[in-house]
Amino acid sequence: MINALAILEPGGKLEPFRYDPGELSTHDVEIAVSHCGICHSDLSMIDNEWGRSQYPLVPGHEVVGTISALGSNVKNLSLGQNVGLGWQSSYCNHCSLCMNGDHNLCREAQPTIVGRHGGFADKVRADATSVVPIPDGIALDTAGPMFCAGSTVFNPLVEYEIKPTAKVGVIGIGGLGHLALKFLNAWGCEVTAFTSSESKASEASALGAHNTINSRDPEQIKQAKDRFDFILSTVNVKLDWNLYLTTLSPRGRLHFVGITLEPLDIAVFSMLGSLRSVSASPVSSPTTMSRMLEFARRHNIQPSVEKFRFDDANDAVDRLRSGEAHYRVVLER
Amino acid sequence: MINALAILEPGGKLEPFRYDPGELSTHDVEIAVSHCGICHSDLSMIDNEWGRSQYPLVPGHEVVGTISALGSNVKNLSLGQNVGLGWQSSYCNHCSLCMNGDHNLCREAQPTIVGRHGGFADKVRADATSVVPIPDGIALDTAGPMFCAGSTVFNPLVEYEIKPTAKVGVIGIGGLGHLALKFLNAWGCEVTAFTSSESKASEASALGAHNTINSRDPEQIKQAKDRFDFILSTVNVKLDWNLYLTTLSPRGRLHFVGITLEPLDIAVFSMLGSLRSVSASPVSSPTTMSRMLEFARRHNIQPSVEKFRFDDANDAVDRLRSGEAHYRVVLER
Repeated sequence: MINALAILEPGGKLEPFRYDPGELSTHDVEIAVSHCGICHSDLSMIDNEWGRSQYPLVPGHEVVGTISALGSNVKNLSLGQNVGLGWQSSYCNHCSLCMNGDHNLCREAQPTIVGRHGGFADKVRADATSVVPIPDGIALDTAGPMFCAGSTVFNPLVEYEIKPTAKVGVIGIGGLGHLALKFLNAWGCEVTAFTSSESKASEASALGAHNTINSRDPEQIKQAKDRFDFILSTVNVKLDWNLYLTTLSPRGRLHFVGITLEPLDIAVFSMLGSLRSVSASPVSSPTTMSRMLEFARRHNIQPSVEKFRFDDANDAVDRLRSGEAHYRVVLER
Repeated sequence: MINALAILEPGGKLEPFRYDPGELSTHDVEIAVSHCGICHSDLSMIDNEWGRSQYPLVPGHEVVGTISALGSNVKNLSLGQNVGLGWQSSYCNHCSLCMNGDHNLCREAQPTIVGRHGGFADKVRADATSVVPIPDGIALDTAGPMFCAGSTVFNPLVEYEIKPTAKVGVIGIGGLGHLALKFLNAWGCEVTAFTSSESKASEASALGAHNTINSRDPEQIKQAKDRFDFILSTVNVKLDWNLYLTTLSPRGRLHFVGITLEPLDIAVFSMLGSLRSVSASPVSSPTTMSRMLEFARRHNIQPSVEKFRFDDANDAVDRLRSGEAHYRVVLER
């Protein structure tokens, strides 16, 4: 039996919940969970904001732990190994996307907390291909957020081959944004934080931003005309996207990793004269996660987290909801 | 003096108009105009649809002719040479974009018919860097539309390095779209035409499309789920862009060269799971126009046009407005 914490109805509180995971599949592993980060998409799932939630719902998809059981066909992981698990916990492993290393885009990728139970538990299972070894030198107590937040902001740097000479803007300094600042600084870029909070401007600097722009001040934004090669939006609110597009240099890209539910109302004229693009991406593939961990270790990058005991998981969720967390909340045993 | 045809007020008719172009600048050339295509953006400028028109307005930015006078500093062109001129008739030639060959993105690029007079005339002048030699083997009477329509649809194939193995959709089979079909077929791609007109389905096939999809039939569009690597929209109307996005394969791009004035209302979720992009681009640089002409000559590609005498220019404009032209209207002397 697995001892978990589950939400029983939309917006509900976490309650103890036991379930029988059945026999371990030949390609799966079981992870003894030591830590689990909490992501905004856990809140979206708790609240059924995307209409995809099934209850009881066990949140948690920023899992860190050790391998406690191995399916008979698993060759690449070993018992006791430190591993992480993110938003996706299995892939078809045979489609052209999987065969090309793009597991994260696989049509049959199974989200860890959609129709199955996640990491707010003593154990969680996943297909071995979705489980990422954590190399020595990565602190386990802060590593959880790497597997969703980290992988989500690191992925576009790899995908779009962002150059160290690039000028990059990051909108929103939260769970995703604070990691984006750290990665981009180490990547060699000129890093600008767009933030609505005055207090976060100095924090942004400590996190790696060379400049900050007040995202509530259209005049400041206008002054950044034609400046950025790449802007990463980590927020889920509607901003004046056409204004942000004016701050992109020719061939610049406004890229969304935060899920803004309101349509983007982009004007063709905002893109056309300067060959600008708008795009969005999900979490990364397991291979890119491994590359991210290697990069993070070399540059001593780790998520800034506030820790709560699993027993205080409801307080932890409330803390994340408050918007005050610096910058990610992690549950520990 | 230059003998031109001008519009004197928004939506007006063309009338004879003479103007003195002054002394020829050292870096300019004068072109004796033999042919001039008519583009939808001429109509937009005639009607002041973009709020940028100045009257008297001499339309015409798909110019073909011969060099009739050379500024003293022009070294790369010669008297009597066959040349073309498109939407842009000068660049700053020193900004980082010009220095990088991206003249078409230059902030000081001068549109041929905005604040100066275009090709509905016996002569037109332009900076030599914006004037493109027409190689032997390109028919002059149909070449005009290459310099705006052709360059606009050819440009993204170069810009995004479209692969001959790609599956590409083209929305709208008009002045731009019919050339896109011809180019893409020669480029090696699988070509699908989206068209609202049943009659154009068979025409699309003759122009190079391997398949057609009725753009007014959402069911047909849904069946093309995940299919296209690239979709080029040449229309200026609002379509269900989120539905079109579903027809893009992972990393697919919905690209606008037609100027849709209504905002695009793109949902982040329509792009995110499959790393899709939305973008737009203007006409190409002169260098890319030369490359296009070389490609067109090798593959025997020329615009399909209806010809009118310059004296019948008002009839020609009306014909373009009717939406019935196959597929571009060209004025000849």
